[in-house]
Amino acid sequence: MEAAMSDPGAIDPLDAELLAAAESQHDEDDRLKPGFVTAVLDAVEAGDAEAARDLVSPLHPADIADLLELTPSDRRADVAAALGDLVGAEVLSELNDYVRDDLIDALRPEQVAEFARELDTDDAVAIIEDMEEADQQAVLDAMDPEDRAAIESALAYPEESAGRLMQRDLVAVPEHMTVGQVIDYLRDHGDLTSDFWEIFVVDPAHKPIGTCQLSWILTCPRSIAMADLMKREQTLIPVDMDQEEVALRFQKYALISAAVVDASGRLVGMITVDDILHIVQEEAGEDILRLSGAGDGDINEPVIDSYKARVRWLLTNLVTALVASTIIGIFEGTIERMVALATLMPIVAGVGGNAGSQTMAVTVRALATNQITASNTRRTIIREIRVAVLNGGTVAAVIGMGVGLVFGNAQLGAVIAAAMLTNIVTAGLAGVAVPLTLDRMGADPAVASSIFVTMITDSMGFFAFLGLATLAGM
Amino acid sequence: MEAAMSDPGAIDPLDAELLAAAESQHDEDDRLKPGFVTAVLDAVEAGDAEAARDLVSPLHPADIADLLELTPSDRRADVAAALGDLVGAEVLSELNDYVRDDLIDALRPEQVAEFARELDTDDAVAIIEDMEEADQQAVLDAMDPEDRAAIESALAYPEESAGRLMQRDLVAVPEHMTVGQVIDYLRDHGDLTSDFWEIFVVDPAHKPIGTCQLSWILTCPRSIAMADLMKREQTLIPVDMDQEEVALRFQKYALISAAVVDASGRLVGMITVDDILHIVQEEAGEDILRLSGAGDGDINEPVIDSYKARVRWLLTNLVTALVASTIIGIFEGTIERMVALATLMPIVAGVGGNAGSQTMAVTVRALATNQITASNTRRTIIREIRVAVLNGGTVAAVIGMGVGLVFGNAQLGAVIAAAMLTNIVTAGLAGVAVPLTLDRMGADPAVASSIFVTMITDSMGFFAFLGLATLAGM
Repeated sequence: MEAAMSDPGAIDPLDAELLAAAESQHDEDDRLKPGFVTAVLDAVEAGDAEAARDLVSPLHPADIADLLELTPSDRRADVAAALGDLVGAEVLSELNDYVRDDLIDALRPEQVAEFARELDTDDAVAIIEDMEEADQQAVLDAMDPEDRAAIESALAYPEESAGRLMQRDLVAVPEHMTVGQVIDYLRDHGDLTSDFWEIFVVDPAHKPIGTCQLSWILTCPRSIAMADLMKREQTLIPVDMDQEEVALRFQKYALISAAVVDASGRLVGMITVDDILHIVQEEAGEDILRLSGAGDGDINEPVIDSYKARVRWLLTNLVTALVASTIIGIFEGTIERMVALATLMPIVAGVGGNAGSQTMAVTVRALATNQITASNTRRTIIREIRVAVLNGGTVAAVIGMGVGLVFGNAQLGAVIAAAMLTNIVTAGLAGVAVPLTLDRMGADPAVASSIFVTMITDSMGFFAFLGLATLAGM
Repeated sequence: MEAAMSDPGAIDPLDAELLAAAESQHDEDDRLKPGFVTAVLDAVEAGDAEAARDLVSPLHPADIADLLELTPSDRRADVAAALGDLVGAEVLSELNDYVRDDLIDALRPEQVAEFARELDTDDAVAIIEDMEEADQQAVLDAMDPEDRAAIESALAYPEESAGRLMQRDLVAVPEHMTVGQVIDYLRDHGDLTSDFWEIFVVDPAHKPIGTCQLSWILTCPRSIAMADLMKREQTLIPVDMDQEEVALRFQKYALISAAVVDASGRLVGMITVDDILHIVQEEAGEDILRLSGAGDGDINEPVIDSYKARVRWLLTNLVTALVASTIIGIFEGTIERMVALATLMPIVAGVGGNAGSQTMAVTVRALATNQITASNTRRTIIREIRVAVLNGGTVAAVIGMGVGLVFGNAQLGAVIAAAMLTNIVTAGLAGVAVPLTLDRMGADPAVASSIFVTMITDSMGFFAFLGLATLAGM
């Protein structure tokens, strides 16, 4: 966008054809067509860098990033080299973290520093923060003192905090300025920053006291003072706030940008909504991966990292499966007398596990979106138990009658029905209570809930079914 | 925000204390404190509507919406009545769908029409679209012809399409206008709309040919023509595009607003990013609920609706569990000879199921974010199989040695290890292949994947373990 501003005629109307051609490189879901990707890869392979560049040059940086992600990892460096300066700072900032790390490893520190200089602080930090200590230092050493200071101070904030997300380029004015003065000031200092959506009004101590949308400035007389135009009710983001919390504020209050303040309340930066969209997507998607223990769960993650993240979880799952297995062991005598029980018992455990997952998914989502507080916890638990009783009753009736008929054994039908009802109600209770308890304890409910819930539904499923069968004298 | 513009002095500095008081009603996660909610409920119960209003009036509409959501459903109508006009159109548009439906049922059509009139088209449509046909008609009848026409034409678009999301109030100018002329035009027509972030440049046929950020207008000389300032490369949203696709475009191209065009390419509306944040959150969260079959999975959903959504899934799960059960039935003779097999078999099925969930979660997320295309499908499958082989090898070694030692039976250890490796690799393959196949067939991979994957991992777990044990002559 910066380019479009400084040189608005960059895209000539004559290039419309090229743009249309690029448009035809996308399928209906806005993904690059395989044929297009292959054409670029073939051109690079044939050593025809110019042809590759001709194909790629009409693309948006976000699409060039997609192209590199779709390129097999062992050919990415070649493709990036052939595309030359088409792979610019904006492309890097759009790239998947793993793919970017790959590419950056192949660059010299001066090149990375060059890229970082072209970006807003937040995007530059995103690129540099994942680098190894030594590489990071080399890049910082190659930067201008001013840029370096900005990046270093951002890196001083915790990962995933507002301080890392914010950009320092913003427009702040004193409240006595009039609309006309602000417009004149902006016109004289157009090089400050060009991507901003709101102006912050600050007091002499540089503390934000109001926010003003650009549209208000454009629709009001020049004589109005900022103090009379600005909205005083603002959402200030503490610089150390976690990015997930920042995203929830943006969503709740429908923010486009927000002022970031330090511990003393001074304005130190601004976060804009375009950076928040990524975070909302990531955070909401993370829960699904965490619930299954899939770690970062990115298809670009190195195999060995995926292995390490997942196997840890599978080994934990192995331990909890042993608990359920031990419970079965208690009833070996019963199973020996009636081996059909072994055939039926996984049904009770499995359907219970599914019922637990349902309640758990609902609870984890509600917690992630701040929908559950102490005010409605009790109500939510009661609600889930009511749903569980209805579900349990229905499933129990179906399986009970089915087993009774197929095995010609009404008692066996009654036993499996009672066990199923017990397990689904237990699952409902565990599905809501486990995430709530973890959340109260300050743990992430998405990470550990399913270990506990699965252990509970497996164990209860086997215990209730085999225990009731034993009691019934089978 | 509208209020702040037409009456910028509405919030007096003296009210700062009240604002600070409201601030203290929030916990560190920006949720309303239980004590505050109780205080409001108590005031309403005691018939002191004024005290309730004093407590609530400093709150942001989004917080008033939260308050109503935290109120038990049987008391919501009383609380809303006591709060009177504090529960305005903005509060309604922020409310959870289920809670809003509850409240709106208690309102007369004229009141709903009044609320709808105060809102942008998109928010008004969001309120009206969920109403029953007859109520909807009554509300529309009570509206001004102009508002009614706007809402009716929005309702004519499919649910969850761009046409429902867009607002009609936008600023579009011809390309020959200069920056100065645009500013003068806006100042003379300040009543058009006050919440916009970009200006669309249109040709004489009202087709968008460029977009211009307000910040560019404010930082450029008055004499510059819009044609020279605008960015020609724009992301146009077809009016019938699905909202999930719209959200992906906003995210990919970091958009703040986008022009919506009809089939003939004419500008018919604008979508702003604040409405997209909700959708990104919803869509990303939906997958987690769908994977577990929890339906809409909202804690405010009526119990009977949750029951219907979930029991359907549990009954399906019952059928797939029967498949696994039938496989165990084949090997009843083997189990009778060695009942320890019944104790151990759920471990193989359970850990395999977990491995399948991991791969499935990763694949579903990658599909939802358009990360997988025909260009990298094969690579992704191979990647997942490699992870599965590593995971399977590790878990198989651990369980194999453990069982061998505990049971003092090396053959049993070898059997369970081989079965575990087989099942985890099968799980990896199923976890990536099932969602990909469903996606290719045009089905939502999040909805049905886990039914198939669980069936495969359960069946393969029992089959591999009991089958190998039988082959080994146990």
